[in-house]
Amino acid sequence: MNLSRSLCRFVSITRKHLGRNLLLKGFPLSPAMAREGSTLQRDTGDEFLKEAFKIVMEEAVQNATDRNHKVCEWMEPEDLKRVLDLNLRSEGEPQDVLLGYCKDIIRLSVKTGHPRFFNQQFSGLDRHALTGRIISEALNTSQYTYEVAPVFVLMEDEVLRTMRSFVGWKAGDGIFCPGGSISNMCALNLARFQRFPQCKEKGLHALPRLVVFTSQESHYSIQKGAAFLGIGTDNVILVKTNDRGKMIPEDLDHKIQKVKSEGSVPFLVSTTCGTTVFGAFDPLEGIADVCERHSLWLHVDAAWGGSALLSSRHRHLLKGIERADSVTWNPHKLLGVGLQCSAFLLRDTTQLLERCHAANATYLFQTDKFYNLQYDTGDKSIQCGRRVDCLKLWLMWKALGSKGLETRVDRVLDHTRYLVEEMKRREGFRLIMEPEFVNLCFWYVPPSLRNKENSPDFWTRLGKVAPVIKERMMKKGSMMVGYQPHGNMVNFFRQIVVNPEVTKEDLDFFLDEIERLAEDL
Amino acid sequence: MNLSRSLCRFVSITRKHLGRNLLLKGFPLSPAMAREGSTLQRDTGDEFLKEAFKIVMEEAVQNATDRNHKVCEWMEPEDLKRVLDLNLRSEGEPQDVLLGYCKDIIRLSVKTGHPRFFNQQFSGLDRHALTGRIISEALNTSQYTYEVAPVFVLMEDEVLRTMRSFVGWKAGDGIFCPGGSISNMCALNLARFQRFPQCKEKGLHALPRLVVFTSQESHYSIQKGAAFLGIGTDNVILVKTNDRGKMIPEDLDHKIQKVKSEGSVPFLVSTTCGTTVFGAFDPLEGIADVCERHSLWLHVDAAWGGSALLSSRHRHLLKGIERADSVTWNPHKLLGVGLQCSAFLLRDTTQLLERCHAANATYLFQTDKFYNLQYDTGDKSIQCGRRVDCLKLWLMWKALGSKGLETRVDRVLDHTRYLVEEMKRREGFRLIMEPEFVNLCFWYVPPSLRNKENSPDFWTRLGKVAPVIKERMMKKGSMMVGYQPHGNMVNFFRQIVVNPEVTKEDLDFFLDEIERLAEDL
Repeated sequence: MNLSRSLCRFVSITRKHLGRNLLLKGFPLSPAMAREGSTLQRDTGDEFLKEAFKIVMEEAVQNATDRNHKVCEWMEPEDLKRVLDLNLRSEGEPQDVLLGYCKDIIRLSVKTGHPRFFNQQFSGLDRHALTGRIISEALNTSQYTYEVAPVFVLMEDEVLRTMRSFVGWKAGDGIFCPGGSISNMCALNLARFQRFPQCKEKGLHALPRLVVFTSQESHYSIQKGAAFLGIGTDNVILVKTNDRGKMIPEDLDHKIQKVKSEGSVPFLVSTTCGTTVFGAFDPLEGIADVCERHSLWLHVDAAWGGSALLSSRHRHLLKGIERADSVTWNPHKLLGVGLQCSAFLLRDTTQLLERCHAANATYLFQTDKFYNLQYDTGDKSIQCGRRVDCLKLWLMWKALGSKGLETRVDRVLDHTRYLVEEMKRREGFRLIMEPEFVNLCFWYVPPSLRNKENSPDFWTRLGKVAPVIKERMMKKGSMMVGYQPHGNMVNFFRQIVVNPEVTKEDLDFFLDEIERLAEDL
Repeated sequence: MNLSRSLCRFVSITRKHLGRNLLLKGFPLSPAMAREGSTLQRDTGDEFLKEAFKIVMEEAVQNATDRNHKVCEWMEPEDLKRVLDLNLRSEGEPQDVLLGYCKDIIRLSVKTGHPRFFNQQFSGLDRHALTGRIISEALNTSQYTYEVAPVFVLMEDEVLRTMRSFVGWKAGDGIFCPGGSISNMCALNLARFQRFPQCKEKGLHALPRLVVFTSQESHYSIQKGAAFLGIGTDNVILVKTNDRGKMIPEDLDHKIQKVKSEGSVPFLVSTTCGTTVFGAFDPLEGIADVCERHSLWLHVDAAWGGSALLSSRHRHLLKGIERADSVTWNPHKLLGVGLQCSAFLLRDTTQLLERCHAANATYLFQTDKFYNLQYDTGDKSIQCGRRVDCLKLWLMWKALGSKGLETRVDRVLDHTRYLVEEMKRREGFRLIMEPEFVNLCFWYVPPSLRNKENSPDFWTRLGKVAPVIKERMMKKGSMMVGYQPHGNMVNFFRQIVVNPEVTKEDLDFFLDEIERLAEDL
């Protein structure tokens, strides 16, 4: 470790720079300026950054995705507080201590890129995407004007255009939002604005009761959005789903009629392509018919399932999506480009997005600029400063091509299929349903509960199994997978395989490990 | 350049890996899996990442902050489109081509970390903060549960606690939001929920007309928020400001009384500490008195000015902030930790934030987890997946200490003061007002317009000066500074010096360069 040598260099460089600064002639150096010191200096900082990047490369990239290393290093919150010196104090700390913090932070964090992290709807660590993210961070600009983000204004436009073409639209609009929840909220806002443009100025107070429809399996952001946008969660009508978690168009139609008959005004149906728990796809064609009949905005929350559009084998899951008015699609989920990358896509070509969101701030969106103002796209957003979320996806897409992305999607579905077949062959694994997509929901029936389904406490006892297995896997650090109760179903696992580095051996390991962790249960 | 050697290694590694994959015995290899190929492979990707990091280090960190390099490389949108191959295609592209793209992207982007970038309320490239950002990107987790973000849940809590202590609160709550606009929207939502808890379920339809107050100098996010939250921009009452851009408490009191007399319900006053154009600070004590008298929620949008709290010399600007109910404070602005880092801080200790925003999704926030559930903080947010925004600030704070941050703030204010004095000594620079904070607003009167203030077209002609100077500086790439018209004032420059690397020589350069660029005007 040549850290101590580096640190000696830090000190000497610092002294030199400080000296040079002090010598600048005629400079009225305030005490504040004189105090500045080591941490400001470029060269010192660059050395630190290079040392830190080595640590990142070794610990957060290589080891963090290596099967010989743990997925997580479990520690109780109170213990973790004792181990980490989180306190922020008056004095700065030396470079070697800071590098130590970096190592500790990485070591004690969950390795979401690990091939045995199956816990969330994202995993993996695509090196091209990570490169795009590091460049975005280093350039640190805001995606609001061509003036400060020329490359990224054009790039966002190109990425959104390409994504729209996979939806099936030749034209349209869109914007990257900070996450799928906010994309979905934008859909609510646009649909409301299209129906009642006066809402922007007058607010909801002057309007009739507005109602939105979504399925009982939809993502909670529709509820959060209805609350945030002043619509109210009571005005989100939950449409029934069939036994596979898909919205029933007839029930939708029925509920729309009922709401209308009560004098309220339906304005949007939010469908889901890839529900959070079951990965179900709502039948878009049937729902689009209902929306057309009632002149309702059709939104498709394809945050999770949208990436299936890239696969000629699987895009049938989203049949009819081109009839939507708006689509949420998060490449940070299945495609693993890194949080956050959420595209909000629109079929509209009448500048609805900008008309709905614009505030025309003269200090950003001057009208007498020397270039074409159509490239100042920031006023389409509800944000002011907005991160560059397009580069990471663009660079990964350039590296893989649409075909490479398709391969990844197909591979994920192949892996799910493999797991299903294996589970059927093994005792103890009990599928909730045949998966339609990546979400593989199952109970694990441990040895003591097998063939006891008729005992009165079977389900109560089964419901306690998943939390115990989860606790054991996390304390061991061998893998991570999520579980939840759902409706009247007791706790079951939801297995998600999206990491492109996953192999069949990892899937076998997953099944074996569940068996091992539960062998005494 | 050893790129070609690296590329040879890419190819051989790729072949080796592909071979090994194909040989995995018993694996039902689908065509999709067989097609995978080069871009997935770990070692190849790691080589690419290392090469890319070298480029980032040299081009986006060192050269991008070097005075011998340009601030921007201006190109018309249509020209830039021709230069950059932005198209996304079916086939992936080779590693060397991708590295070339990375270089082009950096070269053609604006260097916001450059010591002569004065265009936005952020600048500089703190190496410790950048390290924190790169680690956050590599670990790629979501800040919603202790399960997947143990370190960052505790760290966010500590950073918010420390920020609250600078506000003057011993207890409270808070969360990082994707930007100040959304933080301000959260303030609107919380104030509304506190006053009318039923709004979450019932919506605004069932409520009286709600009204918020803010000054005419406030940020446009209050308008965007009112539109988005269904309150309506007409229900944002703009309070008058004095000649320094500060809200007049008497006018606020008067307008509140008027709104009440009309039967509407005021519920929030949004003050600003550091307005966008003038950098003005509203008089919080006087406004807090008015809010107390009328039982209104006091929000302080200190996105820009909040960092002055760190300075014992300058925190008087925010006198009375401890009386606020909520505060927005963006360390990504003055402290330069990188977009985005926006803290929404609350005085409340009754879990108002969680009660207002929670949706209690069972698949994330299981109630039978094996650890203390108070550490699953994600339901406080309107987002679901949420980026880790605390680490970059935490690491920079650890490096500099509160004292080091104070020094930076003081230095920024010293620089502004230096510029003011220099402008007074030079012909042509005409201050709009003595700055209270960092924003230094001025007209530059070029030689042809000097001593012609009484001519009828003076102001019209003066208004055309700033856009021309701006165009020239961008085409030359020498520096960047923003301008805008404001109220009845024609275009003027708003100079912002926040980059900690700026020296007196940069400030002299700035003044000289304006003179040079306008010498024929």
